[in-house]
Amino acid sequence: MPDLRLPKTIAWVGGLDGQVELVDQTLLPGELKMLACRDVEAIREAIVSLRVRGAPAIGVAAAMGLVLGVRDAADADSDGFWARLRETRERLASARPTAVNLCWALERMEALAQRLADRPVAEIKQALLDEARRIRDEDAEMCRKIGQAGQHLIRENTGVLTHCNAGSLATAEYGTALALLYAAHERGRRFRVYADETRPLLQGSRLTAWELSRAGIDVTVLCDNAAGELMREGRIQTVVTGADRIVANGDTANKIGTYSVAVIARAHGIPFYVAAPSSTFDFSTSDGAKIPIEHRSGDEVRAGFGRLTAPAEVPVYSPAFDVTPASLISGIVTERGVIDPVGPENIRDFFGL
Amino acid sequence: MPDLRLPKTIAWVGGLDGQVELVDQTLLPGELKMLACRDVEAIREAIVSLRVRGAPAIGVAAAMGLVLGVRDAADADSDGFWARLRETRERLASARPTAVNLCWALERMEALAQRLADRPVAEIKQALLDEARRIRDEDAEMCRKIGQAGQHLIRENTGVLTHCNAGSLATAEYGTALALLYAAHERGRRFRVYADETRPLLQGSRLTAWELSRAGIDVTVLCDNAAGELMREGRIQTVVTGADRIVANGDTANKIGTYSVAVIARAHGIPFYVAAPSSTFDFSTSDGAKIPIEHRSGDEVRAGFGRLTAPAEVPVYSPAFDVTPASLISGIVTERGVIDPVGPENIRDFFGL
Repeated sequence: MPDLRLPKTIAWVGGLDGQVELVDQTLLPGELKMLACRDVEAIREAIVSLRVRGAPAIGVAAAMGLVLGVRDAADADSDGFWARLRETRERLASARPTAVNLCWALERMEALAQRLADRPVAEIKQALLDEARRIRDEDAEMCRKIGQAGQHLIRENTGVLTHCNAGSLATAEYGTALALLYAAHERGRRFRVYADETRPLLQGSRLTAWELSRAGIDVTVLCDNAAGELMREGRIQTVVTGADRIVANGDTANKIGTYSVAVIARAHGIPFYVAAPSSTFDFSTSDGAKIPIEHRSGDEVRAGFGRLTAPAEVPVYSPAFDVTPASLISGIVTERGVIDPVGPENIRDFFGL
Repeated sequence: MPDLRLPKTIAWVGGLDGQVELVDQTLLPGELKMLACRDVEAIREAIVSLRVRGAPAIGVAAAMGLVLGVRDAADADSDGFWARLRETRERLASARPTAVNLCWALERMEALAQRLADRPVAEIKQALLDEARRIRDEDAEMCRKIGQAGQHLIRENTGVLTHCNAGSLATAEYGTALALLYAAHERGRRFRVYADETRPLLQGSRLTAWELSRAGIDVTVLCDNAAGELMREGRIQTVVTGADRIVANGDTANKIGTYSVAVIARAHGIPFYVAAPSSTFDFSTSDGAKIPIEHRSGDEVRAGFGRLTAPAEVPVYSPAFDVTPASLISGIVTERGVIDPVGPENIRDFFGL
């Protein structure tokens, strides 16, 4: 099997007195640099500044951040420990308000602590570190399974379009959408990936192109607005993206631009797949119209590269996500298999609900 | 009527010993600076480096460049003058090989010179300067007429999406697609323009947003990939773009991304208009599949902002144009009126062919 040279996106190094080490993704593709975080504020800053991004990777970062927040609490002061835990949790939860995995990871960590509430503080701390590492390892394992479940969709000698970065860098490792590509590549299949640049933050050209190229996968970058032309030219046979949230009827929120790609793919009869762990499903929301859309600062568009690319006084409309309706999605690849067709009944059946 | 504060995109200042002055568009929106060109190489460099861009404006620049090239030829040496004319023409024609208006303007200038071939060189030179100024003035007049012909398509309290810059800066003044907006604005109509950023060279956010905002028109910038989301939100009622070439059946080549916008607009039932002077029509080409697509350097994508935004070793696929099929175009606005529906018979009838 080829060595994929997957980056160590995020890891806890050492024991309880150790540190979190993560790839500073703002420096890619120019420089692969590990950032060491030894306290909550360092982790929070890394999340806020998108040094670590991607829902699953943020979840891991938050879990490890919680450990950093409580490890220095005095073992003899139980009240102090619990106060520190609450404080740390709030501090981390506010880093990116709409990130579902962030809250999910913090809730899981706190629930574990609650279950051990009658044990010595030192023991709870160690259990929290073990749990944070488990969250990371489970995510890596889940991504492998997504790849296995969906690799057959990546056929020999085809072109595959992806948008944003749903890869190793967005997860503990291996990715979600890119997991299909890694798994197909590991099986010796040849194909060409087209990576949408993904304005405004260019996760496609900066991150997806970087990690696929490093893994030895044939990848070409395009501007977002060229996707239609590439489809017309017959260069793309499959589209696969990640997901930030999938609701009960299969409507899927993902990085801005995903919806446009899905509409254009449909117009060309090209299948459009979403790949995501089952934890991405939000069964409490009935349809995509109810998903709140985060908006980003116009300065990411105006001055994202150090020079002014739009007049300072002109407003910028910059939704961070859009919603692709289930009707445009050919299938959703999860760690348990592929949901196809995508609709509320089939999703309920798939999860045995 | 509101003062539109239209930039003086390109003008000949002074007599035959004068100079060409043009807006250096590479410095916008940060700085409005006029560049003075006193010889052919200066004009050529301005065209090659996109300091002046937009098919009509390039035509004017080429015509004026031809004058700069021949004005210093000795009046007493007729052979020398004609040699200089040919040389200058070739030098300018190679500046941007696919720009139709560039060749059209040079041919018109040379044809005029040929008609005056038995006159003194000094007289031909002056006639060429007059012709170059006429090309500029005719273009400005044509743009006004396009605006008048299509302004009714821009309705009160609607949202209008445009792609790239088909405005004052792309023409002698007033623009083609943006002429509709200027004409509607001059009539007191209120509407909001959404300007696609237009990767890779950002003509939408840098130029369209700048000139519309300066004219007092409500304009908002979006990333190209957000157009679908804005349409889904009901923010856009009309799309209007320019055209680089319209062939016999109505298929239209325009800036990369236009095709994607047209596909998405159709999916939302939003009318998609093209605005262009009738000189943009190429009746010798039957359909869009026969239009050659210019490709641009990947470095415009990779390093357009002064830092590396894609790995240096990863290829970039960067078509400069795409072709929107006539079937997706609701109407073509010309200086003679609106062609609607768009199809080969109707186009022939419209032009009395």
